[in-house]
Amino acid sequence: MSFQKPELKYLNSYPSAAKMQSQRSLLIFDQILLRKASSRKWIESFPFRYGVQSGEKLKDLQSFAKHMQAILDKVDTVPERPMRVIALGGGSVGDFAGFVASVLKRGQELVQVPSTWLAAIDSAHGGKNALNVGSIKNQIGTFHFPSEVVLIRELLFTQPEERVQDALGEALKISLIQGGALWKKWNDLRQWQASTLWKMLPDLIEAKYKVVRKDPLEKKGHRHILNFGHTVGHVLEAELKMSHGLAVLAGLKFAIQWSRQLGLFKSAKTEAQFSFLPVPKAELRRLKNPGKYLKQDKKRVGKSQIRFVFLQAPGQVIIRPVAVEDILAEIKRQMK
Amino acid sequence: MSFQKPELKYLNSYPSAAKMQSQRSLLIFDQILLRKASSRKWIESFPFRYGVQSGEKLKDLQSFAKHMQAILDKVDTVPERPMRVIALGGGSVGDFAGFVASVLKRGQELVQVPSTWLAAIDSAHGGKNALNVGSIKNQIGTFHFPSEVVLIRELLFTQPEERVQDALGEALKISLIQGGALWKKWNDLRQWQASTLWKMLPDLIEAKYKVVRKDPLEKKGHRHILNFGHTVGHVLEAELKMSHGLAVLAGLKFAIQWSRQLGLFKSAKTEAQFSFLPVPKAELRRLKNPGKYLKQDKKRVGKSQIRFVFLQAPGQVIIRPVAVEDILAEIKRQMK
Repeated sequence: MSFQKPELKYLNSYPSAAKMQSQRSLLIFDQILLRKASSRKWIESFPFRYGVQSGEKLKDLQSFAKHMQAILDKVDTVPERPMRVIALGGGSVGDFAGFVASVLKRGQELVQVPSTWLAAIDSAHGGKNALNVGSIKNQIGTFHFPSEVVLIRELLFTQPEERVQDALGEALKISLIQGGALWKKWNDLRQWQASTLWKMLPDLIEAKYKVVRKDPLEKKGHRHILNFGHTVGHVLEAELKMSHGLAVLAGLKFAIQWSRQLGLFKSAKTEAQFSFLPVPKAELRRLKNPGKYLKQDKKRVGKSQIRFVFLQAPGQVIIRPVAVEDILAEIKRQMK
Repeated sequence: MSFQKPELKYLNSYPSAAKMQSQRSLLIFDQILLRKASSRKWIESFPFRYGVQSGEKLKDLQSFAKHMQAILDKVDTVPERPMRVIALGGGSVGDFAGFVASVLKRGQELVQVPSTWLAAIDSAHGGKNALNVGSIKNQIGTFHFPSEVVLIRELLFTQPEERVQDALGEALKISLIQGGALWKKWNDLRQWQASTLWKMLPDLIEAKYKVVRKDPLEKKGHRHILNFGHTVGHVLEAELKMSHGLAVLAGLKFAIQWSRQLGLFKSAKTEAQFSFLPVPKAELRRLKNPGKYLKQDKKRVGKSQIRFVFLQAPGQVIIRPVAVEDILAEIKRQMK
């Protein structure tokens, strides 16, 4: 598959139903957005729509058949085919609707309209979707890139200001991977708020595509660097039910501290740059069985090796296979 | 996606487990093959295997979550990733295993080892897979081409001789689409038996790839000609529970008779060539509600138009949109 970068649209307010080709689109949306008058009005301009409750339950393969039956009842009245599936919501809605689009009648066009900051900078763009099988996350899924990602200021700003924190981890991650001018911007940042994030959005998104385009289907391993901060982040998310954003933030600090411990930093100055990141000591201490989650890590190679992403300098990450036991020992060290 | 034709392997007997890379493969197989000593022995040479009961029930989306849970329990002990999913069975097993391969951890390599003649000449090659949602067939699926299709004489010949009939419809269909030398072979055919089919297999398969390669993802419409005989065939299959092969055979005769009725035949001679095909009068008479099934046809355009494949001459099929009502009227005419 040759990679076709989705068209990115940055809009101040909701586009018209006609612009979204609502007549041939099926809107899969987070029901919570019905509570706000502005998003409700927009949602109701789509004749074919399917509301879902966001969250991990939505991604449960067990309930997928029930959802598909309900969706097919709607789809069969959509006048034209092929159709477009529009995903309006955060990460779980994007994952669910992305998977629906990829398997519905052997694949339909997908448009992502992220409603959370986290989805806006990260998950809406990666082309990956996933469902969970029982307690094991993201075991089922496809690569199915959206043809468009529509970023709507009015929609994103309906979130409470504190949700901006959720995006901090992924924003910092991609900036560290990219380095250069993007990373330098962090030094000038006084506050991390919605207006900052909206301004930085195009740069953050371009940085993500720079990595994705080199390895869209994760075949060459290059895309694995996007896992920076995620190995331990996922453990914190799974075991402590932390939000993905905050878990990744803690995971980044963990990876940075481990990089220093192993003497991987290229410059002595590097460490000081990360002093603003809180040390995840308390979180690590609360872990009861991190080994169990690490062994379920999708990114492991062989029985117990995991490709861990270390930092040498902003703009320079390296991947090294480590044993699950090594990570457990480092967790022990860092929790002291 | 650029189309990569699967590697075709014609073998007289079962390949060694090492040749099938059994250590990193998950074999999904039709349990019925355990009854024959030879296929049983081969199946048991795969350390990672998952037996299923073939048939439409296997393709029910309702039970997919249960299957995936069981498959993941096995897969997590496969030492190497990426892995290969090997589908050993007929059409339903190929559809199921093909879908599993395409969504398991975002896509794994697929190898098709058809155990029925029908799968050997047709479904194992098309790259299409599908599950059913409730009573509506093939609503969920992907395009996921196998990297290899392994055709094993010993395996195919374990089928009772009468199963060769099931493949007659698809074999005739692709020969009519291809025309030329392949169609001429039919005039020399004295008997339609396993040994004939095995000999013709490479030509029949190449004819199928000739169509598929022009439109692997069914985007240009060209691949639609493979639907020749299937519009009414599917109705007979769904309503009368006829086998796919025999239903397609009847559907071909229906399409040929309709082509003549509409004066589409290029030469007066053409009709005589098809006198050997039985007229499906009795089958058409048994239909109670063909309109219901025609309206569910996946290939319809708009509300009630269906792209019907007509024959002008061997090697020349044409597609014309027709109304569901036109097909119903022609069914009435032909049942008299």
